[in-house]
Amino acid sequence: MKAIVKAKPELGGLELRDIPVPKPGPTEVLIKNKVVAICGTDLHIYNWDAWSQNRVKLPRVLGHEFAGEIVEAGSAVKKFKVGDYISGEGHLACGFCEMCRTGQGHICEDWKGLGYDIDGAFAEYLVLPETNLVLNRPELTPEIASIQDPLGNAVHSVFAADCVAKKVAVFGCGPVGVLAIAVLKSIGAAQVIALGRRNEYRLDLARKAGATHILKTSEIDDVPAAIREITGGKGADVTIEIAGSKNAIQDAVRAVRPGGDVVLLGIPAERIDFNVAEEIVFKAIHIHGITGRRMYDTWYRMGGLLQSGNLQVEDIITHRFPFDDFEKGFQLMRQGDCGKVVLNME
Amino acid sequence: MKAIVKAKPELGGLELRDIPVPKPGPTEVLIKNKVVAICGTDLHIYNWDAWSQNRVKLPRVLGHEFAGEIVEAGSAVKKFKVGDYISGEGHLACGFCEMCRTGQGHICEDWKGLGYDIDGAFAEYLVLPETNLVLNRPELTPEIASIQDPLGNAVHSVFAADCVAKKVAVFGCGPVGVLAIAVLKSIGAAQVIALGRRNEYRLDLARKAGATHILKTSEIDDVPAAIREITGGKGADVTIEIAGSKNAIQDAVRAVRPGGDVVLLGIPAERIDFNVAEEIVFKAIHIHGITGRRMYDTWYRMGGLLQSGNLQVEDIITHRFPFDDFEKGFQLMRQGDCGKVVLNME
Amino acid sequence: MKAIVKAKPELGGLELRDIPVPKPGPTEVLIKNKVVAICGTDLHIYNWDAWSQNRVKLPRVLGHEFAGEIVEAGSAVKKFKVGDYISGEGHLACGFCEMCRTGQGHICEDWKGLGYDIDGAFAEYLVLPETNLVLNRPELTPEIASIQDPLGNAVHSVFAADCVAKKVAVFGCGPVGVLAIAVLKSIGAAQVIALGRRNEYRLDLARKAGATHILKTSEIDDVPAAIREITGGKGADVTIEIAGSKNAIQDAVRAVRPGGDVVLLGIPAERIDFNVAEEIVFKAIHIHGITGRRMYDTWYRMGGLLQSGNLQVEDIITHRFPFDDFEKGFQLMRQGDCGKVVLNME
Amino acid sequence: MKAIVKAKPELGGLELRDIPVPKPGPTEVLIKNKVVAICGTDLHIYNWDAWSQNRVKLPRVLGHEFAGEIVEAGSAVKKFKVGDYISGEGHLACGFCEMCRTGQGHICEDWKGLGYDIDGAFAEYLVLPETNLVLNRPELTPEIASIQDPLGNAVHSVFAADCVAKKVAVFGCGPVGVLAIAVLKSIGAAQVIALGRRNEYRLDLARKAGATHILKTSEIDDVPAAIREITGGKGADVTIEIAGSKNAIQDAVRAVRPGGDVVLLGIPAERIDFNVAEEIVFKAIHIHGITGRRMYDTWYRMGGLLQSGNLQVEDIITHRFPFDDFEKGFQLMRQGDCGKVVLNME
Repeated sequence: MKAIVKAKPELGGLELRDIPVPKPGPTEVLIKNKVVAICGTDLHIYNWDAWSQNRVKLPRVLGHEFAGEIVEAGSAVKKFKVGDYISGEGHLACGFCEMCRTGQGHICEDWKGLGYDIDGAFAEYLVLPETNLVLNRPELTPEIASIQDPLGNAVHSVFAADCVAKKVAVFGCGPVGVLAIAVLKSIGAAQVIALGRRNEYRLDLARKAGATHILKTSEIDDVPAAIREITGGKGADVTIEIAGSKNAIQDAVRAVRPGGDVVLLGIPAERIDFNVAEEIVFKAIHIHGITGRRMYDTWYRMGGLLQSGNLQVEDIITHRFPFDDFEKGFQLMRQGDCGKVVLNME
Repeated sequence: MKAIVKAKPELGGLELRDIPVPKPGPTEVLIKNKVVAICGTDLHIYNWDAWSQNRVKLPRVLGHEFAGEIVEAGSAVKKFKVGDYISGEGHLACGFCEMCRTGQGHICEDWKGLGYDIDGAFAEYLVLPETNLVLNRPELTPEIASIQDPLGNAVHSVFAADCVAKKVAVFGCGPVGVLAIAVLKSIGAAQVIALGRRNEYRLDLARKAGATHILKTSEIDDVPAAIREITGGKGADVTIEIAGSKNAIQDAVRAVRPGGDVVLLGIPAERIDFNVAEEIVFKAIHIHGITGRRMYDTWYRMGGLLQSGNLQVEDIITHRFPFDDFEKGFQLMRQGDCGKVVLNME
Repeated sequence: MKAIVKAKPELGGLELRDIPVPKPGPTEVLIKNKVVAICGTDLHIYNWDAWSQNRVKLPRVLGHEFAGEIVEAGSAVKKFKVGDYISGEGHLACGFCEMCRTGQGHICEDWKGLGYDIDGAFAEYLVLPETNLVLNRPELTPEIASIQDPLGNAVHSVFAADCVAKKVAVFGCGPVGVLAIAVLKSIGAAQVIALGRRNEYRLDLARKAGATHILKTSEIDDVPAAIREITGGKGADVTIEIAGSKNAIQDAVRAVRPGGDVVLLGIPAERIDFNVAEEIVFKAIHIHGITGRRMYDTWYRMGGLLQSGNLQVEDIITHRFPFDDFEKGFQLMRQGDCGKVVLNME
Repeated sequence: MKAIVKAKPELGGLELRDIPVPKPGPTEVLIKNKVVAICGTDLHIYNWDAWSQNRVKLPRVLGHEFAGEIVEAGSAVKKFKVGDYISGEGHLACGFCEMCRTGQGHICEDWKGLGYDIDGAFAEYLVLPETNLVLNRPELTPEIASIQDPLGNAVHSVFAADCVAKKVAVFGCGPVGVLAIAVLKSIGAAQVIALGRRNEYRLDLARKAGATHILKTSEIDDVPAAIREITGGKGADVTIEIAGSKNAIQDAVRAVRPGGDVVLLGIPAERIDFNVAEEIVFKAIHIHGITGRRMYDTWYRMGGLLQSGNLQVEDIITHRFPFDDFEKGFQLMRQGDCGKVVLNME
């Protein structure tokens, strides 16, 4: 079968290889992919950055965003069956640690990441444990079904605080940031303030996704002050940081109102300092680190929002390529004038 | 000033009287009304039913749904001022009991109801303690501002359980039921199932407010089974009862899925029995009694939803009359082919 | 191996049989029991009541309360190993339904009960899936470890509402009721009011477990009034019903303060009626049905309370018998002058 | 009347002055003090540090920890009456801002602090608005009643996270830290790890208050590692920082387990930096800033814990002086070998 592989460290980029179709074990299934989608994590491995060099053993099939159909089921598979239209959670949790057993499998003590710790979804076929499967409603298009992993990051972030009917600022208008804006719009956030540095394409995506206010931070001296002005003086009820920049994280803490919530999904490269006394203690705020998706509360929540019709994410998938043209998708994501980029298998 | 008064028990209906403009005390304000709205409670007093006879001392100015402007402020009023465009909470809580001091003023040990325990809002002018005022955004029309009391009942009911992205059934399509449907639509409920006995006018209002499914219960043998079929077999995640009928309350308990929430706002006249073992204990459900509005969480939540633009309630105000024609409004509400009925002061 | 078996319906009581040691499958373990404990459910089967006749296929090994050691582990067992000192959850959940996947495995759509749907723990050896195992701290005696299933019911009930520093009334002083009292004592409930009909032995156990007030209901005319008097006039913050009697359930609803929580674990045999308007809606109370134990939040919570030293349950285990003398234990439980009754394997 | 006054900036320390008894306004009461207690804030003003110079206008009566009796009530006082045995909340909140109206009066937009923004409690008599009074149970000694403000800080901190049955580390063994340890003991924390730099007197107080483990951080190289070892490898479920030191705050973040909660009450003087990616985002932790006491949830919770008998704080009041000997109390607090220091009025 065809697969997109990071083969050797000295090699720039990725290559399309022909490799054997994997065999599912007793509790696993074999999935034939319909659509896969490119995540920023895939780009890190493409770029072979420090994180990748430290974490990923080569050769490795990339990818963890996908939608497909079960074509073979192991002998001990209980609930899913051949023919099911599914997507899946890319974090393979152990199932037995205290975190897994108390609804926090996303911070399992011993999880593995599809597409970097083990071979991933950028291939015609994919093996996954039954535990990680999620059944898609037939009404869901394979394209939308394939981006539920990053949409799940957005849902997890938004539901980490009380955003319904509240004033929320989203720092970062990359794909996950724009998805978070769409989620906020779908649940009736009073105001949705989108903040991006300068990429007009993405600020425009944020506007279409439902942002009520757009702030281009490269042109603003005092971002927290701008947010206080929009929100009536006190600051945002919730700030969500998905850019991973030092400035944005510091501004997210300063721009939240007393008693408010700061949600941090973005991953900064450097240490960050705060005025803990004034900005955190006396303001009595709450800061939440977010990673992955809750298993499987986030998936059910996301499914319900999509079913409601309120959550519209079609326009956030801005580019489609045939699977073999994956290089075009990666180049586009490096350049930045895009939302989600998907690869069609047929 | 003109006021709608329940004057004598032997008198059917109400009368328009000319009475003195009330004087605000040091911590109170005088409000000039723009729009008032008729509640089912007003109809109870109009009808002089058992509850009214027991509770209301005559003569009494009716009404507790209103929007207006402050025209005079007592000497000790702190935050509000002449000219403010306001609505207000109709439950006057004591402010000092354990309930009041822990965010549960709606079940204050010693509250009084505007328009039945004390003179109400159906008059040109109204006195209210500053504690009960809520500032309206200027964008809010006085008509919508005037129905925030019943809209607040709907918001309180919906937020008594986790309805975002969930499957919710609303029993009863009177004005509050239809408002609850609009609220559920605004926050991305996956499914909103509206149940009414037979009033086509109100079922149609429910459809326009965002119900995804309409069940006319007079034509259905097994209502819980119908809800289970719509929801994929298990039942609704949340059921909200706003009809106050025995059948509806029993069905609301039976139609909720295991682990789900039943929200009871409707006020039944008779005792109601349940199969506690099978329907409550083994199903591990939660039943919540709801009354009034949380002071003032519900009001802030409601304000945010209105500001979001997701919550659309204009079409639920179906009839407007000049204040002096109040009798037409009451007759219409008795007959039932209406949503909210408002009276304009000018 | 020796096992306590319900063999034939026409047979009164149970019999000690010699049956083959079961073999664990790939994801299961074989456990050698140290101590087992008798539950009211076992008594139902002993008595072969209506529930038993409807649910239990014969012959069946009884029992689901146990503590033991793993002596053999299937090939696919991941985390547990031979020699581990364990207890286990007696509800075998499917692991894949929406309930299981959102932390509500205790109301799994397709669960099986150890000791009634499948062969149970009243034997020298027991097979259980790895998913259901819980590691015991070595400091925990096998006797206490063996009663974690009913103690878990008590913990689940107490943590279904906010009982810390609150006034709580417990209806029913059977073993689970008394365990609930000990749990309430351990977490700093302001008042713990124990209610029992007339069994002095059990009321005395309740007193020793930490009840601050004892109410013998057979001698009290108006139980809710008695509770209001103790609690300063308003009623209990939380009432917990573990007796399953109609009177107690109705009193639990009437005796809770406005805005309070009623927790129902007891299983009544008949339908029960309430004044829904006055007792539930206007009082804005919350009623929670409770069954089983949360998997595995309840187990971790229970483990932490035992580790704290605050939770003292030794004195609630009132009687010990050798395994072969099980008949004495069942007779004692029928008679009622006991707390938990355990059977030692050696 | 006698009062302890900070009179002039150039003056070191405080002076005992004779000033007029204040007059209560219509919504206020006059309180005759029985016992007052010295807070660290009083010491800041005594020392006339940077914060004091910036905030406090002179002359000023100090103090906000007290217990006394109402001797005069204003004409509009509603619930409290002459003779009531009371303590009170020292933060005077506006009552009308969004924070006040949603149960967050401790972060009111416009609050004033008793004893630094307005004249305080270190006097024979004290005026306070009725809104700020809390009725004491007669069983509560005036000494314990007088320290409910700092005990409330401890209760607020502990209840900011889920500590019942959990492993909790408390950084800082000053009076509030030791009170937090007593609170944790009273609610069944599985482990209570007390951390102090070197003061043996206070580490000993921590031990007596219920700490299960004592860590003297001046003698430990890697504090988070020491906590991980005690807690079984993962870290504490909750860490509470009440020292306000940079090292302690950084350690509190590092020592919490993935998904855990960090509670920050201590007030550091400098900016503090974190590895946000590794320590907050990937670990998915929650950080909560805490200030004051929730009005009035914290007070009810505290009252319930004291009523339970589980919360024992007598031994944390280590020194008593007559009111006129206040200087001895302040000297002792500067030196540090003490818990709470109280001043008796008679």
